[in-house]
Amino acid sequence: MKVGIIMGSTSDMPVMQDAIDILKGFDIEIEVDIVSAHRTPDKLFDYSKNAHTRGIAVIIAGAGGAAHLPGMVASLSPLPVIGVPVKSSNSIDGWDSVLSILQMPGGVPVATVALNGAKNAGILAAQIIGAADKCVLDKVIAYKEGLKFKVEKGAEEVRSKY
Amino acid sequence: MKVGIIMGSTSDMPVMQDAIDILKGFDIEIEVDIVSAHRTPDKLFDYSKNAHTRGIAVIIAGAGGAAHLPGMVASLSPLPVIGVPVKSSNSIDGWDSVLSILQMPGGVPVATVALNGAKNAGILAAQIIGAADKCVLDKVIAYKEGLKFKVEKGAEEVRSKY
Amino acid sequence: MKVGIIMGSTSDMPVMQDAIDILKGFDIEIEVDIVSAHRTPDKLFDYSKNAHTRGIAVIIAGAGGAAHLPGMVASLSPLPVIGVPVKSSNSIDGWDSVLSILQMPGGVPVATVALNGAKNAGILAAQIIGAADKCVLDKVIAYKEGLKFKVEKGAEEVRSKY
Amino acid sequence: MKVGIIMGSTSDMPVMQDAIDILKGFDIEIEVDIVSAHRTPDKLFDYSKNAHTRGIAVIIAGAGGAAHLPGMVASLSPLPVIGVPVKSSNSIDGWDSVLSILQMPGGVPVATVALNGAKNAGILAAQIIGAADKCVLDKVIAYKEGLKFKVEKGAEEVRSKY
Amino acid sequence: MKVGIIMGSTSDMPVMQDAIDILKGFDIEIEVDIVSAHRTPDKLFDYSKNAHTRGIAVIIAGAGGAAHLPGMVASLSPLPVIGVPVKSSNSIDGWDSVLSILQMPGGVPVATVALNGAKNAGILAAQIIGAADKCVLDKVIAYKEGLKFKVEKGAEEVRSKY
Amino acid sequence: MKVGIIMGSTSDMPVMQDAIDILKGFDIEIEVDIVSAHRTPDKLFDYSKNAHTRGIAVIIAGAGGAAHLPGMVASLSPLPVIGVPVKSSNSIDGWDSVLSILQMPGGVPVATVALNGAKNAGILAAQIIGAADKCVLDKVIAYKEGLKFKVEKGAEEVRSKY
Amino acid sequence: MKVGIIMGSTSDMPVMQDAIDILKGFDIEIEVDIVSAHRTPDKLFDYSKNAHTRGIAVIIAGAGGAAHLPGMVASLSPLPVIGVPVKSSNSIDGWDSVLSILQMPGGVPVATVALNGAKNAGILAAQIIGAADKCVLDKVIAYKEGLKFKVEKGAEEVRSKY
Amino acid sequence: MKVGIIMGSTSDMPVMQDAIDILKGFDIEIEVDIVSAHRTPDKLFDYSKNAHTRGIAVIIAGAGGAAHLPGMVASLSPLPVIGVPVKSSNSIDGWDSVLSILQMPGGVPVATVALNGAKNAGILAAQIIGAADKCVLDKVIAYKEGLKFKVEKGAEEVRSKY
Repeated sequence: MKVGIIMGSTSDMPVMQDAIDILKGFDIEIEVDIVSAHRTPDKLFDYSKNAHTRGIAVIIAGAGGAAHLPGMVASLSPLPVIGVPVKSSNSIDGWDSVLSILQMPGGVPVATVALNGAKNAGILAAQIIGAADKCVLDKVIAYKEGLKFKVEKGAEEVRSKY
Repeated sequence: MKVGIIMGSTSDMPVMQDAIDILKGFDIEIEVDIVSAHRTPDKLFDYSKNAHTRGIAVIIAGAGGAAHLPGMVASLSPLPVIGVPVKSSNSIDGWDSVLSILQMPGGVPVATVALNGAKNAGILAAQIIGAADKCVLDKVIAYKEGLKFKVEKGAEEVRSKY
Repeated sequence: MKVGIIMGSTSDMPVMQDAIDILKGFDIEIEVDIVSAHRTPDKLFDYSKNAHTRGIAVIIAGAGGAAHLPGMVASLSPLPVIGVPVKSSNSIDGWDSVLSILQMPGGVPVATVALNGAKNAGILAAQIIGAADKCVLDKVIAYKEGLKFKVEKGAEEVRSKY
Repeated sequence: MKVGIIMGSTSDMPVMQDAIDILKGFDIEIEVDIVSAHRTPDKLFDYSKNAHTRGIAVIIAGAGGAAHLPGMVASLSPLPVIGVPVKSSNSIDGWDSVLSILQMPGGVPVATVALNGAKNAGILAAQIIGAADKCVLDKVIAYKEGLKFKVEKGAEEVRSKY
Repeated sequence: MKVGIIMGSTSDMPVMQDAIDILKGFDIEIEVDIVSAHRTPDKLFDYSKNAHTRGIAVIIAGAGGAAHLPGMVASLSPLPVIGVPVKSSNSIDGWDSVLSILQMPGGVPVATVALNGAKNAGILAAQIIGAADKCVLDKVIAYKEGLKFKVEKGAEEVRSKY
Repeated sequence: MKVGIIMGSTSDMPVMQDAIDILKGFDIEIEVDIVSAHRTPDKLFDYSKNAHTRGIAVIIAGAGGAAHLPGMVASLSPLPVIGVPVKSSNSIDGWDSVLSILQMPGGVPVATVALNGAKNAGILAAQIIGAADKCVLDKVIAYKEGLKFKVEKGAEEVRSKY
Repeated sequence: MKVGIIMGSTSDMPVMQDAIDILKGFDIEIEVDIVSAHRTPDKLFDYSKNAHTRGIAVIIAGAGGAAHLPGMVASLSPLPVIGVPVKSSNSIDGWDSVLSILQMPGGVPVATVALNGAKNAGILAAQIIGAADKCVLDKVIAYKEGLKFKVEKGAEEVRSKY
Repeated sequence: MKVGIIMGSTSDMPVMQDAIDILKGFDIEIEVDIVSAHRTPDKLFDYSKNAHTRGIAVIIAGAGGAAHLPGMVASLSPLPVIGVPVKSSNSIDGWDSVLSILQMPGGVPVATVALNGAKNAGILAAQIIGAADKCVLDKVIAYKEGLKFKVEKGAEEVRSKY
């Protein structure tokens, strides 16, 4: 099972890189592309309609401003779609991308993560694959243990000072 | 020259009716349809790609929540697209539809009007047609004169009291 | 594979019922419970730590105000967690529940849906199960076809009038 | 047919330049001026009342803060008016200019574009002229093709990496 | 010295009545009219340019939505202008009128009061007149004493219960 | 007639300086002080209760965050009080100071100007004094003429380029 | 140790009653009064300066709009002050009272609870007293147990249905 | 009586340091630790359930984004909990942490202070201890006197200039 990662513009790459990195860390196969809802609508249609026939199990879509990419993919594909609101320049503090991804009408969900939250999009994709793949689930469990460990190291340092 | 009026759902009709009424008042030909970006994406594509070949000169598109209809039409059609943010139930006070229609990326404009401002969408469509059609321009000028008259009648009443 | 549906209070039931109904419509097994992050934190711990060991594959968690339930479940369970922001009374227009569910820190995702969007939470859960279960995927595809059909019926009526 | 481009202050020029550039690229004649609703109200009146008599077909008006310029021009001219909310210093994150341009009362529309969206204002003006001028319409179509091409070039680069 | 009270529409009257009542209570002469920035711009010009020559010392202007009336009056008149943001229907929770009245650019102030705060606009007008008229100042002082008295009566009742 | 200018902290001085400068430009006598509602409440009381007995005709009060200074002065003084919301560090984008100054309850107005709008506070104070003092009114009229002139100079430059 | 409960107006009583009820349930002595920062500033001063000398250990202050009462009491009293933002009529969705209570400057804290959260203000006051009084602490612990029990009863009902 | 200071991440330390410094200045014993609601939920449980048994009288908890730490501690501990919303990177202007800490449901209060208001959290903790400890109360009174003095020094400087 593969994760498709798409974004509206190459300028979203610095944010979306986190999703790529985390999925690579989980040894999950990815496919990365630029698909713009507004500038390449035909590609959006082809991509969304066919993704599930080429072995993609989850789609991560990142976009900024009036972010229509995640919702349009969700409208055209039967796969679970994870939306990453990107805080672009000229955004109104990120509210525009958050609301245009989150507030989808009944019938067409987008699994929205935090503003610029591409890392969490990657983890969520792993969890979705892990719902059926015990081996990936175990990696997610190990990853979470790693988080704990890192926090505890910082905690020790702080406690030693006060 | 015809105006295409579309909306995401029949539940948007009470708001969008104002656009229909005002254009009828200007004797401008209209064509009304329901086109849902999220539930009928294929129809969205067909409609948007062909509208300008069938005599439509301006498209008015109304939608609520994560409102992708106006922006997607604008991405697929060379015509000027007027977006009407509709305050739907479960909307976050209308901010979601306002921002997902207004904040379009560079290259793909949507002429956005006020929340529930379908009347103004109709007038704007008339003005766009009027840019080339002197007769319609004159109707717009007459309409604005009418607004003045109505305000002045209310004003007289108020002045007579104080 | 079962879907666990929990919510912070019985007062969230009118909203969360949509998730129950949609999953029943897909013939997906569900388990419903009330788990309050703030009033029954021990139950929250037990529930979250053990859900994946009892056959639950996805958890849907709904809560209002400073909504900590979805995020805390996500912190304690390796399963994908879908968060439903509920617009409770005394909420500040729903912004509080939206932001406290959406804006999770890196490492602990919650798949957030629209304000009061429990129906979409149910569909998303079906899509997640469908990522591994072809039969459920087909039901999702059929469901989306149904949406199209319904829109088109409304469209015909509208077109017949104008 | 000419496009009039006005703005409230020379400090709006860096934003409004995008409208000038795009219209020049379309070989559409423009006329640029500074007209301040609050500091030169008489000029605002003269400009707005006479623009359509001097061959201007569309007016683009940019302003920041409590941005009254686009709305007042719309109230005084029968032409379609495109409003560009400018994010000025001391603005409250741009919300002030967005709302004072967008939320026009019934009867007096302003075609509002995104915050700092002068480029889209220019394209929209071209589309309005294109509604009657096939040659301009073709340029808009070509421009949109160019957008696609540019996205696809970035996409190729990205795909080659992953 | 007279206070001019204007508003954009007769529908603002229920809110603006409070300004009328309070000024009558202070025996200050008023003049009430409907002046719409967007529908009667010529009247706006005449009114604003001449108000100070007819004995008006302060202008109170109320408007909703993209509320340009107070700011445009302030741009055309040398008198102090008090702006009352009115929460109209289709307003985005009143934010539009608040921001389009409050956020005036440097050089052209509007003394803004609370949303629907016409009563305070009346009191402020009295205070402005009172800056030069000892008799009015004394009425303002007496009015404030009255507020105290009323609060204290409620307080007594509450204290008697607990 | 003198204008009292106060602010909650010396850190507000860079913003409030504009009020000082403009009033000096109008040759209006000023008195500047630091009065903190929260840190020097006794001084707040003394200042507010006595200002009108020492020849002060208008008070300008600037403050940031939960800005209580203008409202408390207004509650204790019969004079017109102009509030300047200051965007302080740790402010939530200025919304806190704007709303805590603007949204005064019925009976106790504060004439609120734009965020960081101290210049306009100074002009408004001059207009209030000018309501009774023809000579100051004439200076305000001359000042506004100057604004026009400055805009027109910029306009000429722009027109010469396009 | 007594808890002082004050509010800006008798119209705040329906909200503030919750604080009264919860403290009575804990058998903690209370004293209730109406103190308006804006209409009875002298009473505000007397109340705040003397509360700690009359056996009051914690003050709960509720107010709406530009809510200055909690912050001014905190500036005048050394006691812990709990602020309750009240959603009054003409409030801008409660944001005004929330921000004018919460965003206090460094040096003068107000312990802010949720919009209309008077019940929590009462519990917090009990916890503050409980910090030194083991008997009250035990009542708080018992109260929290009660919350659990109530949730679990609702949960049973829900589980029995699905 | 000791104050427990915890935060979700070492990156919150620059903000939370203010609470440490102010409490040290009051000679109040503190205990500092890193406890992440989302990454170390077990530690959160242990910490919160046992804090009151180890001599901690008040807990200060700081967190950013979807900030669940203060509320979860409040749900698990009978002690008064002070919440500090931290403006983290990727925060939506701080609104997320403010609302997820402030808007707690009835039954489980968090005493919320301003965005990044750790200094006030420290003072509030001192006031809570001071409610039972006359010596600490006197230090708080002295601290507030110091604030006055500092303001007055700045005031003198300002007055000397104008």
